[in-house]
Amino acid sequence: MIYRNILKHYYTYEEFRTDTKALLKQVETQKPDGIVAISRGGLTLGHCIAEGLDLRDVQTIRTELYDDTTKRDAIKLFGECKFGEHKKVLVLDDISDSGETLKFVMEYLQKNFEHIEFISATLFYKHTSKYEPTFWIKEAKMWIDFFWEADYRAE
Amino acid sequence: MIYRNILKHYYTYEEFRTDTKALLKQVETQKPDGIVAISRGGLTLGHCIAEGLDLRDVQTIRTELYDDTTKRDAIKLFGECKFGEHKKVLVLDDISDSGETLKFVMEYLQKNFEHIEFISATLFYKHTSKYEPTFWIKEAKMWIDFFWEADYRAE
Repeated sequence: MIYRNILKHYYTYEEFRTDTKALLKQVETQKPDGIVAISRGGLTLGHCIAEGLDLRDVQTIRTELYDDTTKRDAIKLFGECKFGEHKKVLVLDDISDSGETLKFVMEYLQKNFEHIEFISATLFYKHTSKYEPTFWIKEAKMWIDFFWEADYRAE
Repeated sequence: MIYRNILKHYYTYEEFRTDTKALLKQVETQKPDGIVAISRGGLTLGHCIAEGLDLRDVQTIRTELYDDTTKRDAIKLFGECKFGEHKKVLVLDDISDSGETLKFVMEYLQKNFEHIEFISATLFYKHTSKYEPTFWIKEAKMWIDFFWEADYRAE
């Protein structure tokens, strides 16, 4: 583990691998038959969990937060999901930080696909989050600098 | 580098990081304004390249090869892409192996979104592939065991 400073934690691939394998053990007990990865944060996690569960159906959803001065911040959703015979779908993101995104996505999915059970999983969860995922591995106590951000950032 | 045997190469995260940074330098000269990641193989690459290019719009496409006895193998495509004001979209996959998938996806996208220029990039390219990506980093001379497969495979 490398701490760049006290408030920022560089999350390495090695740590991700350990946490993702732990998450995999938890989610596979639920036998999901499809995956929705929230873009961008959930893409690498979605990829690795899908491989571990041997699920080919990985769909993605992207959200954008609109700063609207006339009303509360609005979330817009991109990416249409199509679920055929799915019964239980696993929604993945890297972190439930404010929880806004996950809460919105989970409500959207459950409302639009009533016949499907949606469960969620993240690597990190902040105890101040509005939404607690079905499964999460670590509590985020500082800013997480994920390797997929830190390693490719323009210098 | 770990060679599990002479014909299979375990592709570590460290090697991926080096190759992805090299690919990033090449693709950023093209200034793409959107990304399509081919699922599952292109998901982690799509995530890291999107972070490096600071692009939020990552869409995914998934293909399935149908073994049809009455005619040649047919490819079915899942995932609808929506491109607003995009001008140049980067399509990403881990490897152009037979090249079938990438060839099919590139033709599909170019045919359905005529106003957009599509370019493609992969980490690996096989010289026997039917399709050569616009950018690729390494020639695949043996079976590539990507870390996102190897590290999460059921033991």
